[in-house]
Amino acid sequence: MSSLRIGVLHGPNLNLLGSRKPETYGTLTLSEIDTRLRDRAATLDASLDTFQANHEGALIDRIQAGVGEVDGWVVNAAAFTHTSVALRDALEAVDLPFVEVHMSNVFARASFRRASLLSDLAVGVVTGFGENSYLLGLQALIEHIRAGQ
Amino acid sequence: MSSLRIGVLHGPNLNLLGSRKPETYGTLTLSEIDTRLRDRAATLDASLDTFQANHEGALIDRIQAGVGEVDGWVVNAAAFTHTSVALRDALEAVDLPFVEVHMSNVFARASFRRASLLSDLAVGVVTGFGENSYLLGLQALIEHIRAGQ
Amino acid sequence: MSSLRIGVLHGPNLNLLGSRKPETYGTLTLSEIDTRLRDRAATLDASLDTFQANHEGALIDRIQAGVGEVDGWVVNAAAFTHTSVALRDALEAVDLPFVEVHMSNVFARASFRRASLLSDLAVGVVTGFGENSYLLGLQALIEHIRAGQ
Amino acid sequence: MSSLRIGVLHGPNLNLLGSRKPETYGTLTLSEIDTRLRDRAATLDASLDTFQANHEGALIDRIQAGVGEVDGWVVNAAAFTHTSVALRDALEAVDLPFVEVHMSNVFARASFRRASLLSDLAVGVVTGFGENSYLLGLQALIEHIRAGQ
Amino acid sequence: MSSLRIGVLHGPNLNLLGSRKPETYGTLTLSEIDTRLRDRAATLDASLDTFQANHEGALIDRIQAGVGEVDGWVVNAAAFTHTSVALRDALEAVDLPFVEVHMSNVFARASFRRASLLSDLAVGVVTGFGENSYLLGLQALIEHIRAGQ
Amino acid sequence: MSSLRIGVLHGPNLNLLGSRKPETYGTLTLSEIDTRLRDRAATLDASLDTFQANHEGALIDRIQAGVGEVDGWVVNAAAFTHTSVALRDALEAVDLPFVEVHMSNVFARASFRRASLLSDLAVGVVTGFGENSYLLGLQALIEHIRAGQ
Amino acid sequence: MSSLRIGVLHGPNLNLLGSRKPETYGTLTLSEIDTRLRDRAATLDASLDTFQANHEGALIDRIQAGVGEVDGWVVNAAAFTHTSVALRDALEAVDLPFVEVHMSNVFARASFRRASLLSDLAVGVVTGFGENSYLLGLQALIEHIRAGQ
Amino acid sequence: MSSLRIGVLHGPNLNLLGSRKPETYGTLTLSEIDTRLRDRAATLDASLDTFQANHEGALIDRIQAGVGEVDGWVVNAAAFTHTSVALRDALEAVDLPFVEVHMSNVFARASFRRASLLSDLAVGVVTGFGENSYLLGLQALIEHIRAGQ
Amino acid sequence: MSSLRIGVLHGPNLNLLGSRKPETYGTLTLSEIDTRLRDRAATLDASLDTFQANHEGALIDRIQAGVGEVDGWVVNAAAFTHTSVALRDALEAVDLPFVEVHMSNVFARASFRRASLLSDLAVGVVTGFGENSYLLGLQALIEHIRAGQ
Amino acid sequence: MSSLRIGVLHGPNLNLLGSRKPETYGTLTLSEIDTRLRDRAATLDASLDTFQANHEGALIDRIQAGVGEVDGWVVNAAAFTHTSVALRDALEAVDLPFVEVHMSNVFARASFRRASLLSDLAVGVVTGFGENSYLLGLQALIEHIRAGQ
Amino acid sequence: MSSLRIGVLHGPNLNLLGSRKPETYGTLTLSEIDTRLRDRAATLDASLDTFQANHEGALIDRIQAGVGEVDGWVVNAAAFTHTSVALRDALEAVDLPFVEVHMSNVFARASFRRASLLSDLAVGVVTGFGENSYLLGLQALIEHIRAGQ
Amino acid sequence: MSSLRIGVLHGPNLNLLGSRKPETYGTLTLSEIDTRLRDRAATLDASLDTFQANHEGALIDRIQAGVGEVDGWVVNAAAFTHTSVALRDALEAVDLPFVEVHMSNVFARASFRRASLLSDLAVGVVTGFGENSYLLGLQALIEHIRAGQ
Repeated sequence: MSSLRIGVLHGPNLNLLGSRKPETYGTLTLSEIDTRLRDRAATLDASLDTFQANHEGALIDRIQAGVGEVDGWVVNAAAFTHTSVALRDALEAVDLPFVEVHMSNVFARASFRRASLLSDLAVGVVTGFGENSYLLGLQALIEHIRAGQ
Repeated sequence: MSSLRIGVLHGPNLNLLGSRKPETYGTLTLSEIDTRLRDRAATLDASLDTFQANHEGALIDRIQAGVGEVDGWVVNAAAFTHTSVALRDALEAVDLPFVEVHMSNVFARASFRRASLLSDLAVGVVTGFGENSYLLGLQALIEHIRAGQ
Repeated sequence: MSSLRIGVLHGPNLNLLGSRKPETYGTLTLSEIDTRLRDRAATLDASLDTFQANHEGALIDRIQAGVGEVDGWVVNAAAFTHTSVALRDALEAVDLPFVEVHMSNVFARASFRRASLLSDLAVGVVTGFGENSYLLGLQALIEHIRAGQ
Repeated sequence: MSSLRIGVLHGPNLNLLGSRKPETYGTLTLSEIDTRLRDRAATLDASLDTFQANHEGALIDRIQAGVGEVDGWVVNAAAFTHTSVALRDALEAVDLPFVEVHMSNVFARASFRRASLLSDLAVGVVTGFGENSYLLGLQALIEHIRAGQ
Repeated sequence: MSSLRIGVLHGPNLNLLGSRKPETYGTLTLSEIDTRLRDRAATLDASLDTFQANHEGALIDRIQAGVGEVDGWVVNAAAFTHTSVALRDALEAVDLPFVEVHMSNVFARASFRRASLLSDLAVGVVTGFGENSYLLGLQALIEHIRAGQ
Repeated sequence: MSSLRIGVLHGPNLNLLGSRKPETYGTLTLSEIDTRLRDRAATLDASLDTFQANHEGALIDRIQAGVGEVDGWVVNAAAFTHTSVALRDALEAVDLPFVEVHMSNVFARASFRRASLLSDLAVGVVTGFGENSYLLGLQALIEHIRAGQ
Repeated sequence: MSSLRIGVLHGPNLNLLGSRKPETYGTLTLSEIDTRLRDRAATLDASLDTFQANHEGALIDRIQAGVGEVDGWVVNAAAFTHTSVALRDALEAVDLPFVEVHMSNVFARASFRRASLLSDLAVGVVTGFGENSYLLGLQALIEHIRAGQ
Repeated sequence: MSSLRIGVLHGPNLNLLGSRKPETYGTLTLSEIDTRLRDRAATLDASLDTFQANHEGALIDRIQAGVGEVDGWVVNAAAFTHTSVALRDALEAVDLPFVEVHMSNVFARASFRRASLLSDLAVGVVTGFGENSYLLGLQALIEHIRAGQ
Repeated sequence: MSSLRIGVLHGPNLNLLGSRKPETYGTLTLSEIDTRLRDRAATLDASLDTFQANHEGALIDRIQAGVGEVDGWVVNAAAFTHTSVALRDALEAVDLPFVEVHMSNVFARASFRRASLLSDLAVGVVTGFGENSYLLGLQALIEHIRAGQ
Repeated sequence: MSSLRIGVLHGPNLNLLGSRKPETYGTLTLSEIDTRLRDRAATLDASLDTFQANHEGALIDRIQAGVGEVDGWVVNAAAFTHTSVALRDALEAVDLPFVEVHMSNVFARASFRRASLLSDLAVGVVTGFGENSYLLGLQALIEHIRAGQ
Repeated sequence: MSSLRIGVLHGPNLNLLGSRKPETYGTLTLSEIDTRLRDRAATLDASLDTFQANHEGALIDRIQAGVGEVDGWVVNAAAFTHTSVALRDALEAVDLPFVEVHMSNVFARASFRRASLLSDLAVGVVTGFGENSYLLGLQALIEHIRAGQ
Repeated sequence: MSSLRIGVLHGPNLNLLGSRKPETYGTLTLSEIDTRLRDRAATLDASLDTFQANHEGALIDRIQAGVGEVDGWVVNAAAFTHTSVALRDALEAVDLPFVEVHMSNVFARASFRRASLLSDLAVGVVTGFGENSYLLGLQALIEHIRAGQ
């Protein structure tokens, strides 16, 4: 069982985590979430690469550059989940398995948050468990890739 | 940290798992999934109670009876996810935390499978990872309850 | 003026009345409501038969069995109001007058609660007055039947 | 228990009751209905003030003038039920409890009759029982106000 | 050419056939229809098993139990045609050929009767010919199965 | 063949005809149109009563008062065509034949002008011929009434 | 004032007028209607050319051939009113004034009859007055053309 | 029991049956289907007249000409099922019983194939059984006519 | 630069401002708002005429009477914003520039408040700033008129 | 590289090109367009067969007759683009490659012109370039067929 | 009363103002508008920071960077108004008051311009007054902030 | 006839052409397509400037910078076709002719790919011919510009 390389994509405004409205978004900063993800990845024999951007194009560039570098993606596309066909196309084009995660329960939010342009391409979706959504998504992705090896 | 009691609800037709169309639904039977769930629960210091029914009313009766017996539910309502307001009402009335799980990626299926009557009440949703959806959902629920204690 | 026999149908989860979330649903149990209904019926020279079920099929069986036993129904179908074509068909088939009642004001709730599959078949509808909806509905039904005799 | 003052509002064309198409609208005139309402109010220790208009503005003026004069309204807005946001605003602004009544079963009529702009603001709704809708609505309103005193 | 075993499923309220509103539903009882079906099956070298229930879950249980017992189903799901995703899932899971039948012309009835959750899975649909719909459906199913043998 | 009495109703803003934007609405004033209508009525052995109001309630009052005074109505409800259920109810209640007319071709205007709340109750509709719509509508109404005598 | 040449187009199934269901469609045959139209045209100093076809293409051919032969059209497109973009295109291309007529009140019929593909191109529309719709439409068209000369 | 005369209408492109894409449409030509229909008709004491056209108008002409010649129609309108109000009008005007048939299961095809403009007028509908749909439809129509004699 | 005459229209229920629910609608009465508007107008070399009505027809009458008296309107149509095509027609017919204002942020309220029948005719719209919406609207209207002089 | 035989289909009203409204449709007649197409085809080593009809059925007949005669179609179905399922079925049944062309930019026209029933079956679509759309479509079709040989 | 710091955001293509299509967008360049805004801010004791970008991500970065630097935003998001959930999320996350402005009357433009993803979060909206929309919005924002201090 | 300067815009993910999934997207790289376009442009006496970006803002910047540098655009906006109002605004603002091209047949793909925000502004659209769509679009654009010179 070889070691896996997993990429994590954080969409727009997620760099604000922990510094704004902690009662809503929790007190963990994005960097602390990344640390937890890296620790969990280590226990699952995987290395981790994380990337955050407020620019749709930067996320697409990163997805394209990841070919040959990562074995799958954990994607929290935030607002782009609902509007970016280009992000979808990038994920579809590179043809790597990915898991979609959301920290909040998007099904309990405004109606324009409920439709995702990514879900039908994803291996699976984890939503509603705060930073735990990332950790569960990472775990599920790694098990999915290992099962297919 | 006291031990938790978790209930698992399996909706209609899930009793057929493993015996019909294994290429689609996998080769695990529902009973084997229950065993895995019970093992996982044990490692998380939780006991497990599982229930399957093809009758909507039987599931509602079980949810009502669970008050005082379980600390939260893992719910795979299968087809009732999309049609049963009564099941939703039962889960809302007993006011216990629950996690919604689906083995297949419902977002990649027919449009009448995409809307869930339960999601906005759930703590979170895990979908698309086969039997692993149950295991991740169980784990997420237990961590959610422990975090609130 | 002969004595009337009225049936009362309580739909799913109404057996929880009084024991769960009293601030929302009031402190009266279903059994106490039944008692009040029976008292009121007595003052109107009517006998009362009440039935609660979480099973759609059980309610249908009851409606069918009521032919020849009751002169009309007071129906609080709860969640089945919005989803059960079969319940509607049963009420239509037995061709007895019925009044639809709801304790809460369904028009002020989520949109999937506003459409009723029963209303256009009912003599009339009473909604929003708590247990009083039942009492007013009973009174209205009895007066309706008496007016047609 | 102090005496209550209840206002009754009759919307457009209800002044024709009893004189046109008796097979549809019954043989009672509006004035006879008002008499029955006044009698019933008396038995419930309430005084009654009734008002009919074909002018939306006149009904709004009346609602505004009722502040300090009545303790609640019984409202049959007839056609304005489905079109008048201004009437809704007036009822909301004066902040008195009101009950919405309809003589016919609006749910069995043309689709543009089924949506009410008033229902979610009302204490409750009574529909389908002919002039009895008024009487039941009056009774429900008085009990509602008394319960809150 | 071996003998076939055909199951017939009758949905909710069909047990009332012949006893209620004969001018609408005909004067044949369900039992008389079953007899005619059994006779017709005999002439086509098939045995017949029939089942009626007002409970969705009971119909699902029966469909599951039919695996290995019947070679195909004639299904009149009545009201469940329009609301039961669970029934659809059961029929899809057991993977036996089935024919959908309706006694009345559902296309000439209320709009919520026109959409069927079963039709796209069925071999074919027969609608509008009274009890003859059953007989034609039975005949079509048997010929379909024989053609595939 | 007795003489007929026809009423003509002009809805809101039609009193501005001829004085504002003559290139759009023509140079005839409403009073000149009424004169032409009266002349045409005379040649058809009918007397004419005309009424214009910007108040919905005033039009309804006029319709109610017309019972016993006119044998039918020519109605150009202008903007109320599209919004007034109360006007519709008034026309339906008095149960006199009426013809709906529009000077402009409403089908070539904004979409909220295309739906009429009156058309299905009208004997017929004439639209698009300027003041001629009134004259043709008057002629059609008189012939319709005469044919039924 | 020169004499006008008017064409009349009768769409599919109008050749059956008078011979089928006289209680619905009247007892006049299409040929009798044509005679009445010809008589009326004569009194208005116009000649008339009439054409009926059940073939959409034949009606289009006729419209195209009418350029230079007629000064305007009276069009009862019957069922093609609601489905034929090609007929609309033909009428638009030849750029002659036309009046749309319907014998029955299409606004009181099934919803797929209410939308017309021709109305916004027409000078005006006359609907609901039986054969009188044709006569009124003819008169309106002639006055419209004369007014523009 | 007198002999019946049944007409069969085949809509556009059905003349290609058997010669194009046999894996989809089967290997039977339309002429072979007509032969089978004629044989079956003979066994049911009926004569058969069949007609195919790619022209909507030709089918309408045929339906009109059939008055007095046939006692009912078996109609496979193919693509015209979904678009031809004129065909519907023809079938409605001649007022003969007809059965709608489709060889493929239209409910499992593209959404614009699912709505039929004919179904609510038909005695009944048979869909999905290949050429057997014609035979079952013929049989059902004959039994329907015989039952009404 | 000549002095301007500006009219201000207040729609239904705005006469209640300041006297009902001050926490929602502020403590300023309509008369105090009019005073502030008059003061502001004076500093901009404009005179002001204000009018409030709960009657749609009264507002239309006022708009018509304003021709020749005012140079433009500031319009807060309140509930009529969403329902009155007649008010729209009046504003369009008199062809004076007008600015639409709302005190509350209508985009954050119930969906039937979001569509305005006036906005596309207005010079511009100011919404959400309490009484300041009126003042800003007045200022914008005056600058708009002055820019066009 | 063998010579190709290409068919060109012109839908309803295209025979009017060049003779009506040249400012809109250009001054080229259909015959001149055909000449240009034939010249272009010659330079691409292809022969050309062109056909225009206002009859949907005639176009279908032509498509069917083209089997074995042409190697592909250039189709400008004009109004039938948006309404003819039968034309679609014919093109699908004969299974020859075709290119859809439109002279005007249909995406900038009325909404009922934007949906095409043919596009998803076509190799590709060329729209908006006047007669050049035909020439580009011809060129694209020939290159498509050659690429597949 | 301390001095305020206000940020102004100009969305995509607004850098073209004044240089392209002056008849539509006016002759003022964006830089001239900024100067006017700065002058007006000075008279209101506020400093101004302005930023334009065609990149959604750049606008989001700027909004995030503004925390601690500005007291509120004037936002003309141009095309992003209708498509950018990410911009909305940024404005919501930083939790500063903002006013939405549009130079043109968006309610009179194409339907996809009418819905704003920002409006319900804004303090208020000013639309339709050209560059004056900015000035009015600035003034309103400053008064709003001052009122809350 | 002067030489033309044409710009080509490639939207997001088109830089992956030729390197990923050649069976779907062909084996030509974007650079090879650019070479072919440059060669074709040379034969048509035009120079070519090409640009690819995954950033919406970068494409907008390029369009703005192209004023005075190019005479028209060939645009394959890929995913931005369906989501970017800002790109549309940029193309509209610079007011240069452009042709929209797509390599695949977007009409045969998922429904969210069928609507284009650019098409109604484009001279024309070419879709479905692989890299040939670019070449045909280039040719059409040059002929369009030349025809207007």
